[in-house]
Formats: sequence, C-alpha cells, structure tokens
Amino acid sequence: MSCFEDADTEETLTCLQMTIYHPSQQQGAAVFQAIPLNNRKKLSSSEVIKFGRNPNICQYTFQDKQVSRVQFSLQLFKELDSSVLSFEIKNLSKRTSLLVDNRELGYLNKVDLPYRCMVRFGDYQFLLEKQDGESLEFFETQFFLSPRSLVQEVNWPVPEFSRLSSCSTQSTSPIEIDENEF
Amino acid sequence: MSCFEDADTEETLTCLQMTIYHPSQQQGAAVFQAIPLNNRKKLSSSEVIKFGRNPNICQYTFQDKQVSRVQFSLQLFKELDSSVLSFEIKNLSKRTSLLVDNRELGYLNKVDLPYRCMVRFGDYQFLLEKQDGESLEFFETQFFLSPRSLVQEVNWPVPEFSRLSSCSTQSTSPIEIDENEF
Repeated sequence: MSCFEDADTEETLTCLQMTIYHPSQQQGAAVFQAIPLNNRKKLSSSEVIKFGRNPNICQYTFQDKQVSRVQFSLQLFKELDSSVLSFEIKNLSKRTSLLVDNRELGYLNKVDLPYRCMVRFGDYQFLLEKQDGESLEFFETQFFLSPRSLVQEVNWPVPEFSRLSSCSTQSTSPIEIDENEF
Repeated sequence: MSCFEDADTEETLTCLQMTIYHPSQQQGAAVFQAIPLNNRKKLSSSEVIKFGRNPNICQYTFQDKQVSRVQFSLQLFKELDSSVLSFEIKNLSKRTSLLVDNRELGYLNKVDLPYRCMVRFGDYQFLLEKQDGESLEFFETQFFLSPRSLVQEVNWPVPEFSRLSSCSTQSTSPIEIDENEF
C-alpha cells in the first residue's frame, strides 16, 4: 500500500483511487478531458466532492451532454467508535440511477462505500478503491483511466439467486438509459 | 400537521423545525441574532446546510466565539425503497462533540436523524422535528426560539441502567466542555 503523507503533520492520508472507463474513449471521445489523471489531489475532509457536467458546481466534470449537471457526490465520514475514514456516495441526478455494485440508488439515495466497489451510471464505470490513512483533516483522490471495460475485468460477486440465470447480464451489459431522461 | 406547498408543483415540502435554546439568552446575549426566526426558508434538496461561526461557509451562524467555524452540517437524503426524505447530521467540529439524543458524535461522525430528536453541543440545544412532504426538489427549515431550556421541558427517555442513579444528570445538566478546546 503506497500511502502519502501530509507535509505538515507527517500523517498518512486516506486516498480514494478511482479507475474510470467510458466506451466512447475507443472512438476518441474525451468525456474525461477535465479529470486530472494519475496525480493525487489533496482535499479537506469536510469537503463534499461533486461529479457531473456543470463546472460551477462540480469539482470533477464530464464533457458529455448526457451527464446530469450534478450526477453524484462523495463525502468522507468517520465511523462511530473507529478511527477509519470512509466514503458516502449520494445520487444527485433526478433522471439517472447510480449503481453501487449491484445496488441501485435513485435520486437522493445514499450508501456507505466498502473498501472496493464498482460505481456505474449510464455507460460510465468507476472502480473505487480506498487506502486508509491517519489524517482526519485531509484526504486525497487519484484517477486512473482504464483502456478497457472494468466490468469484464473484475469478477464481481453475483447474488445467489441470479448466478445461473442472469450472471452475464449483470456483469457485462451496459445500463439501459432512456435518452429522453437526460 | 401544517404542510407548505411548492408554488410551482403544488407538492408539499418536507420541513425541519428547529426549536433552539442557549442559556445566555437570559442574560440578553444574542447568539442567535443571525438565525431567521419563525419564517420558513425554502432550500434545494441537494444542499448541505452548515451551522457554525463563519458566515462565509455556514448558512446559519451563531454569534459566539466559542462556536467552531463550522460546527455541524445537515443534509437531506431519501431512504432506499422509500419516498420519505430524512436528514443526516455530521459533526464538523474537531474540538466539540455533538450529542444527538444520547449518542455522542466526534469529528466527522454522522447519524441519520429520527423524526424528533435533541441535538446539543456546549450549552446549545436544538429540538429537531421533521414534517414529511411530497417534493423531492425542495425542503424547508423553520426556527423557533425557546424561552427556556429544552432538556427540562422534554421528557427524554433515559437508559434503563441510569434511571435511578443519574436521571437528573442526563436530562438537565449542560455538557461539560473544556474551554481550551474551542
């Protein structure tokens, strides 16, 4: 585990690594043009970071008219009786569901993220992986671009009831989205 | 239940009523001077509202140097598989605990609020009461000033083990706070 430190306190920082993919990359589209890749970015623990199309509201924007002005937010919290920082994700799009692993979040639904999970909306895929750190004041984000679909690479657990019938549908198909909904 | 409507959609709005008290009121101090009393204020459901001393960060400020720049935040969310909006509270003060009923929240701890609860930090008391509404786009806040301590008025449940020994301590004493912590 590669932990980075706060220069002032020498405490290691919690880092959220996000490996991102969108199929239009293969046609040369630049939906992730405004996402800073590879370098870590230090943020205040109390900050709510928003992802979407509107750069006046969102820290991380997608160059894609099909994306909602604000698609979702991520924020840190500390679990009760624990020193570990975790992330909460909340869907802020009125029209598009957010899939966290196989759980579907509607508008304003939220969920606490496990150490590693897949977040999807439309054709967007995000593999989120958390590295723990000591600092409570700051955390870091880091983005990597995946050259290929993440849902084919990662062997996501499939609920028992659907293992035989719809395994391939759950793990590889893009989410269907009504164009009129954007 | 008095529900107010969104003028455009005619949907009723979820309202968070906050009855607030601080003992310095009785000496004429005006810690709540910047809090808009009695009138409802309409806010976007996606907004995170912050309470504290710094008016550049907080929507609701307290005129009191002992209060942290940001003390806590409130934000709406929708419970999974439900149409009901609820509130999450998060302590954003590094130095002061937040008590939600009898649960103590440290820095970055969060908890989902029940329909009615008592929130306290230092000598501040907030009785929070939620009224459900239909709108998912907006909600309202409304503040009332209490002329007397809320912990004496409200008969808060006391855990079984302390009912005989420390009932009065739990329900009436102010929270002890080390002045150096501010």
